[in-house]
Amino acid sequence: MSEQIVIVGFGPVAARLIDELMPAVRDGQVRLTVVGEESESAYNRVLVADLGVGRTTAEALALSDAGTLAADGVDVRLGVRVRRVDRARQQVVLTDGSAVRYERLVFATGSRPVIPNLTGINPDPTAPVLPAGVTALRDLRDAAVLRQAVDGGKRVVVLGGGVLGLETALAAAEEGATVTVVHNGPHPLGRNIDRGGGAVLAASLRQCGVRMAANARSTGVEHNAPDGGFSALLLDDGSAIDGDLLVISCGVRPRTELAEGCGLSTATGILVDHRLRAHHEPHIFAIGDCAEVRCPDAACPECRTAKGPSGLVGPGWRQAEWLGEYLTLLATGTQDEADALPALPQEQAGVIVLKARGLNMAVAGDNAAEPWDEEALTAGAVNGRPRLQVAQWSDPEHGRYVKMTTRGGVLEGLVSVGMPRTAAELVGLFERTAELPADRSLLLRLDGPDQLAAAPADPQGTVCRCAGVSGARIQGAVEEGCSTVAEVSKATRAGTGCGGCHEDIKGLIEKHFQAAPAA
Amino acid sequence: MSEQIVIVGFGPVAARLIDELMPAVRDGQVRLTVVGEESESAYNRVLVADLGVGRTTAEALALSDAGTLAADGVDVRLGVRVRRVDRARQQVVLTDGSAVRYERLVFATGSRPVIPNLTGINPDPTAPVLPAGVTALRDLRDAAVLRQAVDGGKRVVVLGGGVLGLETALAAAEEGATVTVVHNGPHPLGRNIDRGGGAVLAASLRQCGVRMAANARSTGVEHNAPDGGFSALLLDDGSAIDGDLLVISCGVRPRTELAEGCGLSTATGILVDHRLRAHHEPHIFAIGDCAEVRCPDAACPECRTAKGPSGLVGPGWRQAEWLGEYLTLLATGTQDEADALPALPQEQAGVIVLKARGLNMAVAGDNAAEPWDEEALTAGAVNGRPRLQVAQWSDPEHGRYVKMTTRGGVLEGLVSVGMPRTAAELVGLFERTAELPADRSLLLRLDGPDQLAAAPADPQGTVCRCAGVSGARIQGAVEEGCSTVAEVSKATRAGTGCGGCHEDIKGLIEKHFQAAPAA
Repeated sequence: MSEQIVIVGFGPVAARLIDELMPAVRDGQVRLTVVGEESESAYNRVLVADLGVGRTTAEALALSDAGTLAADGVDVRLGVRVRRVDRARQQVVLTDGSAVRYERLVFATGSRPVIPNLTGINPDPTAPVLPAGVTALRDLRDAAVLRQAVDGGKRVVVLGGGVLGLETALAAAEEGATVTVVHNGPHPLGRNIDRGGGAVLAASLRQCGVRMAANARSTGVEHNAPDGGFSALLLDDGSAIDGDLLVISCGVRPRTELAEGCGLSTATGILVDHRLRAHHEPHIFAIGDCAEVRCPDAACPECRTAKGPSGLVGPGWRQAEWLGEYLTLLATGTQDEADALPALPQEQAGVIVLKARGLNMAVAGDNAAEPWDEEALTAGAVNGRPRLQVAQWSDPEHGRYVKMTTRGGVLEGLVSVGMPRTAAELVGLFERTAELPADRSLLLRLDGPDQLAAAPADPQGTVCRCAGVSGARIQGAVEEGCSTVAEVSKATRAGTGCGGCHEDIKGLIEKHFQAAPAA
Repeated sequence: MSEQIVIVGFGPVAARLIDELMPAVRDGQVRLTVVGEESESAYNRVLVADLGVGRTTAEALALSDAGTLAADGVDVRLGVRVRRVDRARQQVVLTDGSAVRYERLVFATGSRPVIPNLTGINPDPTAPVLPAGVTALRDLRDAAVLRQAVDGGKRVVVLGGGVLGLETALAAAEEGATVTVVHNGPHPLGRNIDRGGGAVLAASLRQCGVRMAANARSTGVEHNAPDGGFSALLLDDGSAIDGDLLVISCGVRPRTELAEGCGLSTATGILVDHRLRAHHEPHIFAIGDCAEVRCPDAACPECRTAKGPSGLVGPGWRQAEWLGEYLTLLATGTQDEADALPALPQEQAGVIVLKARGLNMAVAGDNAAEPWDEEALTAGAVNGRPRLQVAQWSDPEHGRYVKMTTRGGVLEGLVSVGMPRTAAELVGLFERTAELPADRSLLLRLDGPDQLAAAPADPQGTVCRCAGVSGARIQGAVEEGCSTVAEVSKATRAGTGCGGCHEDIKGLIEKHFQAAPAA
């Protein structure tokens, strides 16, 4: 007897879950229905901005193909939405009137952009109407709008100083647009970066040709363009920032209304336990941007420090991979057999990386403490637990800044701006929770004029953090014949997420072919 | 015809002036009278604290010998003071009733310790009566008092966080006393050091066993010792710091009352022009701690930025050397011939160095600006003048901190704590106003675990900053037979000031004998 699984949503995380379930589908152990509201199959949403500046193609973003899935027996429904979930009858009712029964239902509804409350923009949060010349840069149509502005050398205003906003701004500026980033903090990246790093980052962004408007509170949009579209972003001090296109990059919010509508518990996202099950509902799961792992056990130590959905594709992919295995076990065996699968480990604090021509930045963990900040450093230093310690290098004149926040010699947080080799080493040390050299200044040598080699890169170190692919695995794929980033991506999934590792993959490919004896 | 010169004061600066005048005295061109209120000949006051902890001897501190001078024809009057100066008659009247005529009078009256206004201490600033167990550590008797406390392993309270107070505290703690430094700022050294450096310095002092009481406002002294002497320093928050000896180290104030009494202009010190002449009085000069170089010309650009007396022995010695030559020229030739001597160049901002077992610190210039301090960095950046820039390394966990404040790549200020080789290199770059490497972090390598060699030390670089003696000159003395620091000091004057270069001189001697082939 085969089990009916319904996945609501067809984004990158859903696509990965489908991949994982395909063996069971082909074996007839699982019947699978996928409901996607867009007319396209899953594509890499993270790179929509790259598509918008003409650096990649829609084909390269594709993560799934509805035709192939259908041929393999998956019931793919595109351009249609789920109207409601009927938990009593275990079925979903679609907007086209049809209903699909399920034994297991997976929410992979993702998130929607946060649209700030601005005069001139329809305030309905679930269905905002964005006027002409305003985009949240979320789907392929939005990319086309940005593409037009960049190709025309227009003025682009990016509202929001998060990493996606900055990436968009850097890419658009590099491709010829006049870009202003408007954000309401003293520096971009908000609390993800400390004050010193934020100041150096802002200066580096200006160096890259991006205008930065800090401490700016926007109140509305002006529509005085010839076509009635966006012409300026209005600020609360009465000033305005003129532009031809407004890109809203103010973060995302989990899409939970369907789950709420059928009575599931939600907080920021849909609440799930360590097996990604909705609370008190063994038939429903949630993964990716819409899911919030926080189990019903109030005493669970892991969940006490758990944060809401990360908004990153990597954790969602790891959930999809784990859930694929779990659902397959449920479909083929007993509940006990499935529950023998070790629960998904808690995600580490994320590493945020920003790479552009002339700008390199990495931040991770808690990096707010300053070296002379007695209060922050002694907080929590009890019961023999080592104190938090901070080492810091600041050279804003040369756009360089590093902060290493350690406890017992192991990184708890880091900031690196303008020092790519130091950044890579620190991120590696952070992810391996490895001890730093006692003289922290040794790490600065990596970006010295002589670029002294550090210990050779650990081949087991992660190159693609989104898909969790090590350097060794990429090397293996290259040795087996992959000679382009796209081929490596196809073979290993490395580079299919945020794209930040493309240069590193290129480097590994080049290294292999340089080492190979000339034919 | 010979000229009568009278020197009021017989401290280190007066001793140097006498040395410079001796050739003219021996030639009969100058008749010289020296009036010293102490019964001893000039000795190195800077090292009184070292004497107090038993690290040096009174003999080693001697800078002059009254007997030898008298044999050479100098009229030395010890244990007597000048009661008043009669400018009309060009004579000084002494406390013993005698009078001495002068053609040239030189004030080298130095300074006296600042005694804070504390209950239990006589408030007369010119003649404070310090109760038993309280000392300002100024003369040889004070050294004996400290010596007794240190040898007895007593509790010493040092009031004041200046460099002399810290040196005393470090030395006393190293020699076995229990030492507390009480100061009213957030960190020691006041405005000479920036906030970050101050915090790391304070931590390093604690590491060296010195207790630090910051932000402490003292209001009085308690006399409950068995002998009725000092027992505690009382603070304004009602608390008290117990101790057996109070060392007051609150800075010094120029002794100007004699000059004021005869109608000379004074500000902080006795005002003198660039030829060290009192304003509008060609017969009177002032040098050392009591003198303030600020000429009567209100438009003089040098004097616009001039500061008061430095309180350091080095500048005083350079004044004594120059004045010796000038007075000799006046005695042997015409005024015009003497005035052809180029005026003494303005003193550079001082370098403050602190060296102890386990602690090394150097500060210089303006080092307050922080790397992200837009306002400080852009101030004065006009008319194409380069902006102030700051590079900074902070690693308080390991007691290390460096700040380099540059303009156009040249140091305007520096702080180094816990990095002796970096400090030495930075001080050298500061004094030579040499350009730093573009990658400032290269300087940190000097104190890395591998101690990469910097460019070999410049032999023309200053080793003894007080007496202005280069490494090459010390090497020369060693080659000519000097094999101890004392011998080098006698031959070159290197090491006769603050003593901070003794280790460096020792290093040069050892290097010479290691390089020499075995006999």
